[in-house]
Amino acid sequence: NSDGKGDSKVKKGPLKPLKILEEDDEDLSALKDPSEKPASSLEPISKRLKIIEEDSGSTSIQAADSTAINGSVTPTDKRIGFLGLGLMGSGIVSNLLKMGHVVTVWNRTAEKCDLFIQEGARLGRTPAEVVSMCDITFSCVDPKAARDLVLGPSGVLQGIRPGKCYVEMSTVDPETITELSQLVTSRGGRFLEAPVAGSQQLSNDGMLVILAAGDRTVYEDCSSCFQAMGKTSFFLVLGEAGNAARMMLILNMVQGSFMATVAEGLTLAQATGQSQQTFLDILCQGQMASTFVDQKCQNILQGNFKPDYYLKHIQKDLRLAISMGDMANHPTPMAAAANEVYKRAKALDQSDNDISAVYRAYIH
Amino acid sequence: NSDGKGDSKVKKGPLKPLKILEEDDEDLSALKDPSEKPASSLEPISKRLKIIEEDSGSTSIQAADSTAINGSVTPTDKRIGFLGLGLMGSGIVSNLLKMGHVVTVWNRTAEKCDLFIQEGARLGRTPAEVVSMCDITFSCVDPKAARDLVLGPSGVLQGIRPGKCYVEMSTVDPETITELSQLVTSRGGRFLEAPVAGSQQLSNDGMLVILAAGDRTVYEDCSSCFQAMGKTSFFLVLGEAGNAARMMLILNMVQGSFMATVAEGLTLAQATGQSQQTFLDILCQGQMASTFVDQKCQNILQGNFKPDYYLKHIQKDLRLAISMGDMANHPTPMAAAANEVYKRAKALDQSDNDISAVYRAYIH
Amino acid sequence: NSDGKGDSKVKKGPLKPLKILEEDDEDLSALKDPSEKPASSLEPISKRLKIIEEDSGSTSIQAADSTAINGSVTPTDKRIGFLGLGLMGSGIVSNLLKMGHVVTVWNRTAEKCDLFIQEGARLGRTPAEVVSMCDITFSCVDPKAARDLVLGPSGVLQGIRPGKCYVEMSTVDPETITELSQLVTSRGGRFLEAPVAGSQQLSNDGMLVILAAGDRTVYEDCSSCFQAMGKTSFFLVLGEAGNAARMMLILNMVQGSFMATVAEGLTLAQATGQSQQTFLDILCQGQMASTFVDQKCQNILQGNFKPDYYLKHIQKDLRLAISMGDMANHPTPMAAAANEVYKRAKALDQSDNDISAVYRAYIH
Amino acid sequence: NSDGKGDSKVKKGPLKPLKILEEDDEDLSALKDPSEKPASSLEPISKRLKIIEEDSGSTSIQAADSTAINGSVTPTDKRIGFLGLGLMGSGIVSNLLKMGHVVTVWNRTAEKCDLFIQEGARLGRTPAEVVSMCDITFSCVDPKAARDLVLGPSGVLQGIRPGKCYVEMSTVDPETITELSQLVTSRGGRFLEAPVAGSQQLSNDGMLVILAAGDRTVYEDCSSCFQAMGKTSFFLVLGEAGNAARMMLILNMVQGSFMATVAEGLTLAQATGQSQQTFLDILCQGQMASTFVDQKCQNILQGNFKPDYYLKHIQKDLRLAISMGDMANHPTPMAAAANEVYKRAKALDQSDNDISAVYRAYIH
Repeated sequence: NSDGKGDSKVKKGPLKPLKILEEDDEDLSALKDPSEKPASSLEPISKRLKIIEEDSGSTSIQAADSTAINGSVTPTDKRIGFLGLGLMGSGIVSNLLKMGHVVTVWNRTAEKCDLFIQEGARLGRTPAEVVSMCDITFSCVDPKAARDLVLGPSGVLQGIRPGKCYVEMSTVDPETITELSQLVTSRGGRFLEAPVAGSQQLSNDGMLVILAAGDRTVYEDCSSCFQAMGKTSFFLVLGEAGNAARMMLILNMVQGSFMATVAEGLTLAQATGQSQQTFLDILCQGQMASTFVDQKCQNILQGNFKPDYYLKHIQKDLRLAISMGDMANHPTPMAAAANEVYKRAKALDQSDNDISAVYRAYIH
Repeated sequence: NSDGKGDSKVKKGPLKPLKILEEDDEDLSALKDPSEKPASSLEPISKRLKIIEEDSGSTSIQAADSTAINGSVTPTDKRIGFLGLGLMGSGIVSNLLKMGHVVTVWNRTAEKCDLFIQEGARLGRTPAEVVSMCDITFSCVDPKAARDLVLGPSGVLQGIRPGKCYVEMSTVDPETITELSQLVTSRGGRFLEAPVAGSQQLSNDGMLVILAAGDRTVYEDCSSCFQAMGKTSFFLVLGEAGNAARMMLILNMVQGSFMATVAEGLTLAQATGQSQQTFLDILCQGQMASTFVDQKCQNILQGNFKPDYYLKHIQKDLRLAISMGDMANHPTPMAAAANEVYKRAKALDQSDNDISAVYRAYIH
Repeated sequence: NSDGKGDSKVKKGPLKPLKILEEDDEDLSALKDPSEKPASSLEPISKRLKIIEEDSGSTSIQAADSTAINGSVTPTDKRIGFLGLGLMGSGIVSNLLKMGHVVTVWNRTAEKCDLFIQEGARLGRTPAEVVSMCDITFSCVDPKAARDLVLGPSGVLQGIRPGKCYVEMSTVDPETITELSQLVTSRGGRFLEAPVAGSQQLSNDGMLVILAAGDRTVYEDCSSCFQAMGKTSFFLVLGEAGNAARMMLILNMVQGSFMATVAEGLTLAQATGQSQQTFLDILCQGQMASTFVDQKCQNILQGNFKPDYYLKHIQKDLRLAISMGDMANHPTPMAAAANEVYKRAKALDQSDNDISAVYRAYIH
Repeated sequence: NSDGKGDSKVKKGPLKPLKILEEDDEDLSALKDPSEKPASSLEPISKRLKIIEEDSGSTSIQAADSTAINGSVTPTDKRIGFLGLGLMGSGIVSNLLKMGHVVTVWNRTAEKCDLFIQEGARLGRTPAEVVSMCDITFSCVDPKAARDLVLGPSGVLQGIRPGKCYVEMSTVDPETITELSQLVTSRGGRFLEAPVAGSQQLSNDGMLVILAAGDRTVYEDCSSCFQAMGKTSFFLVLGEAGNAARMMLILNMVQGSFMATVAEGLTLAQATGQSQQTFLDILCQGQMASTFVDQKCQNILQGNFKPDYYLKHIQKDLRLAISMGDMANHPTPMAAAANEVYKRAKALDQSDNDISAVYRAYIH
């Protein structure tokens, strides 16, 4: 069984409390056999904690249970800090609180904290204070702000003491992750990066996909937190902090390019006299059907560009992914083309709209 | 209800035998509410014949029942001809025969007919003979051959008589459809274009998505045939023959660009030291999860590039879609970038492999 | 010397009347040694008729004298016809008349002929009539009209008789050239393609660069005409009619892509707070300095987009060149990117402006 | 006259020793009238020192005399330091020495200094020592090394004292220039950026084009140096240090995109059965003719990819220019396409070849 298989490759000691023994072969095979894997993210899928060993043995990943599906989770008794209450952070903190975690919050504009304090959160006056008061501090802020949040005055570094955990959830470049990891660990702290794939809606629903790398013991300590906020989580066993950022950038690169492609299809349909709704109906009957296509297109056809993920951020992700290809001498012509379309969208003042507003770059 | 609504926009007479009165509001709303629409093409969805009136009123579409799901269909008593037994045609003819249709087949290399004759098909010696012998003749051939099949010696035109139906299922450019439509109707024939979205596998499974435009009475006469071969079919009520070709090219443009984007992601993952399998696992947990992504990526990781849809054909479709944008003065930078990647794949001898072989353009 | 060298590779008979013996080694070497070759098209260069044998032996070319530089030429006594008095045709006909040719003109809108009749031209009522009346008929029309001009009612084909020469100067696709060549020669006519590189200004100045392929005897019969209209001419000894079209499309592809690149540079300079004039001044001091860069940029900075070469035509040329690459499985990512920028310019109503109006695609 | 005109806009005091009074209207107009401006960089053009006031008044520029043309210059009596003896630096130092300057050199690999010491240069053991010993220190190193050269151990900053001049000639990003400028001036030093357009050949010939911004008095003190190394120089009167870097990046972006376009043309010619030499001959007869096209194409056809400007550096410049567009929300689709082609060339091991080796990305 998968358990035996795992023995030879992964240290199992720390995993025991995570009950990996509950996992059965069936679940594992379900994830390995594409014909049985549910295609939609809305459907119930097995979320029991497990270790998946790849055949190649190159990396290992874990998927956590989701409270959004199971209904409850036993919260960790560690004190949780959370920095940043934006599109993503708000939903995450709500779910942490709902599942009984003790959470101290901080936000650049303090008013946003009020709502969460009413729900039971405590207020931290500075990032340094939050880190000092808590065992594990998460950060989920604007990518531009992530580094300053750590290095700045009253920043995270001021509060780091040996044993403190810092979990960077913002989607930043791998180099920044490496730098932050070194800074935190050089003071005795423990570092995990845990960027998330998803949107405001999925954050609210506790259905994010979490991708973690770095200190595995931190990942395990965060178990109930990730279950509260996510549908599933992956831990990249091989590789250092920075690899989750790389993976996330590539995923967002694909998403950004696909979004631009779909917008190109919708607008070409219109430009050639076709019905956009019919185009969408057919698309959603075919093999490319996905929650993503369906929701984004519906929003476009309704003229609803309320941000679920900021257009400016997907453009930034494209830029960083292209730059990764640059360093690896790997051409990324699709991402390069998409990046230019998003730049046009930004020039049309769509930066703070949803990524689907790239549609407007095609009609103006 | 939808029936009353339809009255004012669509001629209802010919639809009666198709039992549109059986349709209920629930089914209609299911297709209109994205949150309830099943995202996966693998799941059972309502396939009862219906008319969907768009709110915009710009086009109307029909979805046919599928025998692949319902198990059976009452075959038409009209004599069916079928020209072309390639990747798509073979599966279609098998399904027509299984559902009890009387089918006369022709193929450029006649040996391919043998298998189907054993299954009960009759042999036509030339396209003209097939058309002469049958009431409705379908054609599903290499796009390059479609025009010659009609105009050439012993071609379709030689067999067209008043009342004969010709259904062009090959994915060709809209201009060719317009020309063929005019040629067929000028001789008293009835013309329908009915390109399909799908692959060899879906063809074998009777799960194609059919997109039709042209003579609506032909569409209705083909009802049992489309149910035998397809999961669903759409008829573009407004617009002439050529519009289905346009729509299909745009869909294939999106598919081709997306395939290139996914290949770009997979290869960038590898180039930056990530696990391709992990990349795929995460992708298939997220909102972009789809049958298409899952199957294509699995095939790529297994090095399986057996053609489900020829790479050279998706490249041709990209070219034609770009050309449509050209005529409409509509930029298509994503398709333009994708087209160049596929051209590189063709230069690497991947023309007759599956579209997923575009992956190789990124690693050579 | 080059003469002796030529003996082994090129039929010399027909060249005698063209006095190739006058050519000397010095001239030849001047063209072969890049360090001595004048880089600017404004400078006097040797235009004496000569044959240049390439070392590779793959093709041979001829360069004709220019009357614009030598001041005069002995006009052929053959009767010349000219179809099309647009941006290019007007200047060409003026120069033919100035050098003493007997010219019969035709234009779709007949009023344009008046000016030239005042200068001594005769009026032809239809293309067929012009061809009937003349020994050599040139055509220089909108690419879209070139085929109809030959095949249409009262078209060129109606007037072709054995021995008549038809010279296609319009920049069309190679396939059209091949078709026209076959049609003309099948009636006993003699066919030459002779597309030109240049602009309205260069046409007026008799400074076009002519690129010919097809029937070499027609090329020789056109000697005084090409000298009247051009700075130089090339005949592609190896290869059939269609090769000049291919070469011209590639040249225009490079020009179109370069124009877009320069516009991109000018606008990026402005977007980042630089002076566009300074950018241009520096550019014109460097190795990339050329008449093209200088004139186009000056026009852009003055807001002068009067057509020297229609933007819609360079976009068409890009499309055709990309299509050539398509057939040869040769990626052309620069042309593909440029094509999209020109499509945007067309969507901004710049079709009938100069190619430099692609600048506007970058600022809107 | 221009002198009077200049009075109202530019401080003239410090310019007197540069003899701006010698300038006459003719020269000025020659640069302003495109029809008279020599298009080729090989021809003698007026190099007398002058100030050119743009009509817009937005920026002002100066062009310096060139000793390469005038034969001699009066060298400054200031002690000159030079850091970096690579492709560019070697030629520059040779020319400084030839014109009688007192030069102290330093290079990372010290052996390269020997040749110059034989020609009369002095040896500096560290960058700090060179700066300490000299009045004006130039740096022209690999872009990656430029920042470390200043900040590193025994770096430039260690030697900066009030009044010392530091001239950064490496082509780096504007942000680095801004940082270096601030560091140098914060210690009382005077800073000028002076990136050059050109190649190893032009550097050897003393025919570089220099683009300067920053401290104008440094520019003036460098007058004899710039005359020794350059054909002309420009000083961006308005704007701070960093603007010359911006301008240079845009120029290199245009050059890199153009080079890729020309390679695309050459290879498409071959792929479609044309002669590359004929293609080049025609190109060099047309309006796009330039030293750049001529030399690069000749080298390509001879298979000579010896670096005149490193391919890896033009790719870096493209990346930085795209990034500038990113910050300004200005799409640069041509540069984005070119960047991907250069990345492919880098993946084919062409990094240390000349930029013309981008040709190989099209044939592999």
